[in-house]
Amino acid sequence: MPKREDVSISVIRRLPRYYRVLGDLIKAGTVRISSRELAQIMRLTASQIRQDLNCFGGFGQQGYGYNVATLQGEIGNILGIDQAFPLILIGAGNLGQSVARHVDFPSKGFRLIGAFDSNPQQWGKTIRGVTVQDTANLEHFCGEYSPRVAMMCTPTAGTPEIVAKLVGLGIQGFWNFSNYDILADYPDVSVENVHIGDSLMTLCYQMNKQLEKPKEK
Amino acid sequence: MPKREDVSISVIRRLPRYYRVLGDLIKAGTVRISSRELAQIMRLTASQIRQDLNCFGGFGQQGYGYNVATLQGEIGNILGIDQAFPLILIGAGNLGQSVARHVDFPSKGFRLIGAFDSNPQQWGKTIRGVTVQDTANLEHFCGEYSPRVAMMCTPTAGTPEIVAKLVGLGIQGFWNFSNYDILADYPDVSVENVHIGDSLMTLCYQMNKQLEKPKEK
Repeated sequence: MPKREDVSISVIRRLPRYYRVLGDLIKAGTVRISSRELAQIMRLTASQIRQDLNCFGGFGQQGYGYNVATLQGEIGNILGIDQAFPLILIGAGNLGQSVARHVDFPSKGFRLIGAFDSNPQQWGKTIRGVTVQDTANLEHFCGEYSPRVAMMCTPTAGTPEIVAKLVGLGIQGFWNFSNYDILADYPDVSVENVHIGDSLMTLCYQMNKQLEKPKEK
Repeated sequence: MPKREDVSISVIRRLPRYYRVLGDLIKAGTVRISSRELAQIMRLTASQIRQDLNCFGGFGQQGYGYNVATLQGEIGNILGIDQAFPLILIGAGNLGQSVARHVDFPSKGFRLIGAFDSNPQQWGKTIRGVTVQDTANLEHFCGEYSPRVAMMCTPTAGTPEIVAKLVGLGIQGFWNFSNYDILADYPDVSVENVHIGDSLMTLCYQMNKQLEKPKEK
């Protein structure tokens, strides 16, 4: 199997979707699947599927297809989702609370161990068994529990300062819902940006393209 | 300017980020910017920036760089964000409500005109001036107000049925937070998927890669 470093980020970004689709297939009772069938479900070409999975040494047998459960397990291993990285939520307002309640952290490789907000109105609220506390407690908390990842649901103003503090406290990864460009200032941390508004603008472009198309019927 | 059809989706997906970054520059008082400077901010190469913007005929003058406000305006035009497509929220639970409260629809090309949930506990709640109502009212509402886009914040079970209904009622675009693969069944509608969990799994992969790196210092 090639080293993870060699695999392009665009392949990596497809892996969670493979993982999800294979999970659905397992639930539906499917045991084996050909790359052609998997390609149809994922709306990729069979050769694309084979190429993707070959990046990790390939798991199929010529003519037999893939064992669905084995393939899902291997993709989970590649993603490393058994790690349960300790994660804290920074900014427990509407969005932060809802996303943290919505996402199943353990199945994605994380566990929520703390939640922080500077607004006293949020203190004491409970999210997945974790109590929201004052951001002022961060230093003490990180010293005690060593979280590795922070989920940033903070308003843009103030985010650079708190990211600086978190990096100093040992945070090495950010799940970033804010508009602050963390990587520009900290090129060595891991960052996944969730720019919800960007996806809405892309939909707007697609809708406009529909308008331009001559109506058939 | 080439027709929109000719521009690759990967270029389109970068446009909202250009739009955001240029907006920040406008706020900071920047009037002109070179492709080199813009490249630095966006962590792309200058030639990548020029290539992207050339897809639309290019807006820069050799040696003078880009006028920031003009460029932002042009990108907004390309995305078509002045359209104000009427949008309804389907599934006004925790996540749906929070995202709808968080996102600034008008600046992304949409306006929220309705919100629906099958759970009576959500009925009567207000989101950006819109009152959550019974999903049973959908047919009547769509007949009256002709929404074009639906934001799907529904649980996976039941989503295929409601999407089928919405397509029948004239919905042509979906901002999809559910795990249901809408395009597989309706290849002609526009879909933007927001798979929050996928991004978290990608972060998990990145964190694991950090672990593999030999520590320097």
